[in-house]
Amino acid sequence: MIKIGIIGLGRIGQVHLKNIQLYSPHAKVVAVCSGSQKSLPLAKKFGVQNYFTSLEQMLAKVDIDALVIASPTGFHFDHLKLAIASEKHIFCEKPIDLSIQNIQLLKKQLDQTSVKFMVGFNRRYDPNILKIKKDLQEDRLGRVQSIKLISRDPGPPPMEFIKTSGGLFLDMAIHDFDLARHLMGSEVTEVYATASIFGNLPLGSVGDVDTAVTLLKFKDKGFATIENSRNSTFGYDQRVEVFGEQGMLSASNKADNTVSFSDNKGVHHPIPVGFFIERYKESYLNILDSFVESLEKNEDPELNVWDGLQSVAISLAAKKSSEENRVVLLSEII
Amino acid sequence: MIKIGIIGLGRIGQVHLKNIQLYSPHAKVVAVCSGSQKSLPLAKKFGVQNYFTSLEQMLAKVDIDALVIASPTGFHFDHLKLAIASEKHIFCEKPIDLSIQNIQLLKKQLDQTSVKFMVGFNRRYDPNILKIKKDLQEDRLGRVQSIKLISRDPGPPPMEFIKTSGGLFLDMAIHDFDLARHLMGSEVTEVYATASIFGNLPLGSVGDVDTAVTLLKFKDKGFATIENSRNSTFGYDQRVEVFGEQGMLSASNKADNTVSFSDNKGVHHPIPVGFFIERYKESYLNILDSFVESLEKNEDPELNVWDGLQSVAISLAAKKSSEENRVVLLSEII
Amino acid sequence: MIKIGIIGLGRIGQVHLKNIQLYSPHAKVVAVCSGSQKSLPLAKKFGVQNYFTSLEQMLAKVDIDALVIASPTGFHFDHLKLAIASEKHIFCEKPIDLSIQNIQLLKKQLDQTSVKFMVGFNRRYDPNILKIKKDLQEDRLGRVQSIKLISRDPGPPPMEFIKTSGGLFLDMAIHDFDLARHLMGSEVTEVYATASIFGNLPLGSVGDVDTAVTLLKFKDKGFATIENSRNSTFGYDQRVEVFGEQGMLSASNKADNTVSFSDNKGVHHPIPVGFFIERYKESYLNILDSFVESLEKNEDPELNVWDGLQSVAISLAAKKSSEENRVVLLSEII
Amino acid sequence: MIKIGIIGLGRIGQVHLKNIQLYSPHAKVVAVCSGSQKSLPLAKKFGVQNYFTSLEQMLAKVDIDALVIASPTGFHFDHLKLAIASEKHIFCEKPIDLSIQNIQLLKKQLDQTSVKFMVGFNRRYDPNILKIKKDLQEDRLGRVQSIKLISRDPGPPPMEFIKTSGGLFLDMAIHDFDLARHLMGSEVTEVYATASIFGNLPLGSVGDVDTAVTLLKFKDKGFATIENSRNSTFGYDQRVEVFGEQGMLSASNKADNTVSFSDNKGVHHPIPVGFFIERYKESYLNILDSFVESLEKNEDPELNVWDGLQSVAISLAAKKSSEENRVVLLSEII
Repeated sequence: MIKIGIIGLGRIGQVHLKNIQLYSPHAKVVAVCSGSQKSLPLAKKFGVQNYFTSLEQMLAKVDIDALVIASPTGFHFDHLKLAIASEKHIFCEKPIDLSIQNIQLLKKQLDQTSVKFMVGFNRRYDPNILKIKKDLQEDRLGRVQSIKLISRDPGPPPMEFIKTSGGLFLDMAIHDFDLARHLMGSEVTEVYATASIFGNLPLGSVGDVDTAVTLLKFKDKGFATIENSRNSTFGYDQRVEVFGEQGMLSASNKADNTVSFSDNKGVHHPIPVGFFIERYKESYLNILDSFVESLEKNEDPELNVWDGLQSVAISLAAKKSSEENRVVLLSEII
Repeated sequence: MIKIGIIGLGRIGQVHLKNIQLYSPHAKVVAVCSGSQKSLPLAKKFGVQNYFTSLEQMLAKVDIDALVIASPTGFHFDHLKLAIASEKHIFCEKPIDLSIQNIQLLKKQLDQTSVKFMVGFNRRYDPNILKIKKDLQEDRLGRVQSIKLISRDPGPPPMEFIKTSGGLFLDMAIHDFDLARHLMGSEVTEVYATASIFGNLPLGSVGDVDTAVTLLKFKDKGFATIENSRNSTFGYDQRVEVFGEQGMLSASNKADNTVSFSDNKGVHHPIPVGFFIERYKESYLNILDSFVESLEKNEDPELNVWDGLQSVAISLAAKKSSEENRVVLLSEII
Repeated sequence: MIKIGIIGLGRIGQVHLKNIQLYSPHAKVVAVCSGSQKSLPLAKKFGVQNYFTSLEQMLAKVDIDALVIASPTGFHFDHLKLAIASEKHIFCEKPIDLSIQNIQLLKKQLDQTSVKFMVGFNRRYDPNILKIKKDLQEDRLGRVQSIKLISRDPGPPPMEFIKTSGGLFLDMAIHDFDLARHLMGSEVTEVYATASIFGNLPLGSVGDVDTAVTLLKFKDKGFATIENSRNSTFGYDQRVEVFGEQGMLSASNKADNTVSFSDNKGVHHPIPVGFFIERYKESYLNILDSFVESLEKNEDPELNVWDGLQSVAISLAAKKSSEENRVVLLSEII
Repeated sequence: MIKIGIIGLGRIGQVHLKNIQLYSPHAKVVAVCSGSQKSLPLAKKFGVQNYFTSLEQMLAKVDIDALVIASPTGFHFDHLKLAIASEKHIFCEKPIDLSIQNIQLLKKQLDQTSVKFMVGFNRRYDPNILKIKKDLQEDRLGRVQSIKLISRDPGPPPMEFIKTSGGLFLDMAIHDFDLARHLMGSEVTEVYATASIFGNLPLGSVGDVDTAVTLLKFKDKGFATIENSRNSTFGYDQRVEVFGEQGMLSASNKADNTVSFSDNKGVHHPIPVGFFIERYKESYLNILDSFVESLEKNEDPELNVWDGLQSVAISLAAKKSSEENRVVLLSEII
């Protein structure tokens, strides 16, 4: 039984807490660290006995095998350094950090230890993506020529979050950049992005955008186009298409039910499921399972610090590209 | 070039006139016979020089190879006798007649001549049905176990038409009964039907119904369920499902375009195309082509008087079943 | 916290055990009764301390609020009598019993106690059915005219189960009969059914069938057609259509993912999810929640012994109808 | 009745000939001009009495109201000058010419006459596009933020055609560039494109590509992404999505029938219809109708020389962008 400590009990921290306690047959949350006492009742409800507001204390007092880092991004670097120093295995939410230099530093430290590290790009573990990846591995498409990702949120996150999130590219599009790499099976070499604000003026006041399209070129000649928006009135729009020499794989949106209503105006189908917590509930479960399994089997996790580094680099390149309206080589960033 | 005379220029007669004149490379309408002078301009517009109000005169004065009989059902019997007597090949709209005895008499007469006869169950020539039939012939389903047909009109026909139409079973469901025989490739032995009036009280005043479900059992053990309604608010609902030991073939509705609209209430798709003239426009073209081809090749048409007889018998059995609320054997009718 | 005892740890008993222990915030399984010691490890795994092979002992020794009866149907009657005698609330799997007389007897006994009773027609709690029922309650369809249910299993159950199951109508179609009543909001008056064996000869040796179509007529003039098969090669086919004066509600099949694959042969979508345990996992959760909630609020459960009685009566009528090839009035059965 | 002369009887010329002769109630082809005598029988078959191999002669000898120019692009300029000089109305296939200067010259000449000019971007008249445009005009989306066009051919055209076609951007993507302008209702200001050869090496030998993605930015801040490929193994992939502040409009592919086949491997739907002649048959009919109607009503055609100029300019910008790997302003081209 893997003993886990969770750092941060915001939306994602709570997801991991619940998933591990309810469903994981091989792991158990033994301690929680949060910025305040606010989440103490929640921790108790899920059977966690040890509650801290200081990571150092948690590491000192509880016997822990692995840490789940779900604190705000700005704290990741400090939390990661402590975790590495105390040789705990690490599952870290995305993005690892907003600075390439910091991630490279962490990577160097990790390389000198036997600490296992996984970055939380949970969407790789969505049933749709798992199916597409499996089909690609079975070579149903032949050479992949282009990938299209649509990722539109039903609305912007709270302004408080936006301010420290790094903006649309580093907070939101980063998921798609990771998926594009994963599905293409190749590394990005060039990025061109354009971005605008259509709907959310407050976003603009902190220098963020609500709409972007990014074009990635890959080492082996394929490309990916990624559309992001924070303004989807028809719900959480999450689609994937992979086009290759033998055909195409497409993942359409997922709904809460399959009921259509036909009347004299049309045939009406349900909109996509709410937002990421509901849409990706299986993927959150699956990624933690994968992390725990890699600890049990003493194998490297499937998503490592290199993946975390690449996704941040692409996000920074996209941001730069949209600001300078030119193609940015990834080699300018990393 | 096959020289054709058309009898009757109502909705269906006009469809055939237009189709032959515009699209048929191997046939030409050379004469038209209609109850009044009303349709003369239409005939002229499509290049027909000979116009009559008497079938005898048309047969006497114009050199004709084949007749398309699109007059009201009540006139079919007389028109057919004249056509057979003058040895013209015949394409006759459904139903041949409302009386089994009359059809049997016609069949006997036809059997003594070399007149080629085709009954107008055009839906067999709809692209969906052609595809399903082809797949069945290629044995993609193995043994067919059940067939489901949905046929719902967007509204009842005019009361004038209803009065002489023979009612829902003989006018409307008869198409589905023919399709069921065609797709099952076997003959019906038993019929159970139930019928109601939900929406259209005037229909009831002439003894008709607007809703029915019919269950057909076939000689080789399969069955078919057929749902009919005159009350479809969401448009012309025309669907087919064939279930067999290896899988299922399903034909869904057809729309004028493939555009969906997504908003915060749902994903809205277009309703089915208008009504039978639009929905089955290809099938009207195809069936006439098939008739003309059988004349050219001197082969028997694919849909003969036996098919016309069976479909009327099943319709009469369904009517009797719904009136007496019991299973009716086809052998009670024919 | 409602204290629950489970009787029977077959497939369905296990579903309830897992659901209550993992997800129910207001109930807890405190005891399990099974025919042998075989399921003891399972009970322990889910934290159940009390394990019995005799229901009498369980009732005598453990403080229990409610019983979940998931034993084979043949044991229901005895288990229900004991449960009623000891005044435990009851959640009973379908069918309550194969005999109308037995159910009527139980109903009489229940009426004389304050025992709450719910019968386990879980499909009413499937997200699709909940949505359709809600739309009907909001009167989106106006008067319902016809209902169509398709329920096809990917294969027959084990012969051992078949022998005591009561056959296709009482074991399988009974779910659809209950749904039809539920969605129509009216009682069945007449039944016509026809049944065959296409694929599974062993079934025939015990007098069962693998294919049936049933036509139900309701007190308020609507009707339902129900198709059942044990031979679906393309997976678990579970569809619903409700046709009314204002439109139609349709529930299509559910798949594990939304990925399609396009190649030169077609656009290929995934088949429906495996079988009832996976397909109806939400409905099993929801129905137990509903039962527990009715206990907490001291209200009558939504699905009572009357519903259990009606569904068995319709199933028996369908069986009789298919055997005698005639319409059977429900008043002949009940 | 508008008297029409057609120049060029290749694939598209034949489509126009057939459409006008069979379906146009207000126009008639009275003369045809082709490079050789080869198409004489075809012209006769469709009732055209006057056949020429020289445009000058045709213009001199036959009384013509309007010309349909369907000759190879390289001849357009000369044919257009002759047509303008003899004051015939003009329907010209796309692209008008590969040179911006030539088109500007023609525009100047046209502006000095009363000749009506329409450029043949038929896809604007496809039922899907008509529906989307209508919905946009009714403001169902609010402000349009992004447009996505997928246009993939089932294979490359013949090498002979490729050589003089101007390449993928000027021959194929030009349709999409016009559609993007049409749907956005705004002018393009910047273009970024990237292109590759994946499948068709011969294409590369003449400097062409088989795959491209183009990003257009519009004056009023919206953008469009356009994917083109000559390598679609699953058929002619023609899709459109328009995303706006109130929702999304999506046009999916069109198939020859709506039949799906379910077996143990999946639910299989038909691939898209063959290629542009079949896929856009309605749009070819509709655009000619629109042209004839504008002549009859003495109104300006909906698609004029400005539209023809813009689409060529965007195509040239895209080509330049892909070659220089940088954003190209439309003002650099025009």
